[in-house]
Amino acid sequence: MATPGNDGDISSLFSPRGAAREIEEGRAFAPKFDAAGLIACVVTDLRTSELLMVAHMNAQALKRTVDSGEAWFYSRSRQALWKKGETSGHVLRIAEIRVDCDQDVLWLKVRQADAGACHTGRRSCFYRAVVRTAPDAPLSLEFRDDERVFDPTKVYGGNGS
Amino acid sequence: MATPGNDGDISSLFSPRGAAREIEEGRAFAPKFDAAGLIACVVTDLRTSELLMVAHMNAQALKRTVDSGEAWFYSRSRQALWKKGETSGHVLRIAEIRVDCDQDVLWLKVRQADAGACHTGRRSCFYRAVVRTAPDAPLSLEFRDDERVFDPTKVYGGNGS
Repeated sequence: MATPGNDGDISSLFSPRGAAREIEEGRAFAPKFDAAGLIACVVTDLRTSELLMVAHMNAQALKRTVDSGEAWFYSRSRQALWKKGETSGHVLRIAEIRVDCDQDVLWLKVRQADAGACHTGRRSCFYRAVVRTAPDAPLSLEFRDDERVFDPTKVYGGNGS
Repeated sequence: MATPGNDGDISSLFSPRGAAREIEEGRAFAPKFDAAGLIACVVTDLRTSELLMVAHMNAQALKRTVDSGEAWFYSRSRQALWKKGETSGHVLRIAEIRVDCDQDVLWLKVRQADAGACHTGRRSCFYRAVVRTAPDAPLSLEFRDDERVFDPTKVYGGNGS
């Protein structure tokens, strides 16, 4: 991890979940982490509004994100905290964090370095559209906005952050 | 449900999950449903690019969405398939569906009726920003873009779709 340090008392950052009305209309930040302790995060580019990626945070990743102003996530496949850009240098600087009505999804508006958010080398992870080519055929994918903005084989050592 | 009908053979719409390279660089649509059979869906407004909501689909909701061109979801709290706008009339017409690199998140670009996507009456579910008011205080929320575009008490009978 880039900044091991002491994450302090994480729970003091959040308020307890109250009644639905408080969660939806109140000013207390009471995020709902799922059974695995995670909350989904939608990441968009502040300047272009483009959807870049979707990832998950645990409480520790959220605290580090708030403290550092750069996005940290929790990888479900690797079961580890990770800082976006730790390997690639493509950090995501937080411009704003929003939360949805029932406080179980976060929206990060970010400024990203002049490179891609996707480990495949694209600006966004969403470089394919779902299309129907024939009424009875399986759905297929069509590449869109799929230009590579960096070479992933040069940037990553098989890591992908 | 609005259109019970016969959903036919759902699995024939999707391809089996292959190796990572096929999933990331292929043209086969092989969505990854989680242990509960769900996939997360990010919904944005086609015209403004605004993030409207995040919801989940099961395979049946995805099939109905593809077949009808209007968004269907699966409610985890109500454990039921639902059509967005079934009660409110605020349907989401699909302009494009994208999938991310590892095919475990969908992005729906939609045209929404001249009303809000959020059951609280706002255009978007993300009407509050997470802010730090003091170094040691819990994080709090600040209302932003929170104008109500419809009156939820007039639109819903306690349903919220």
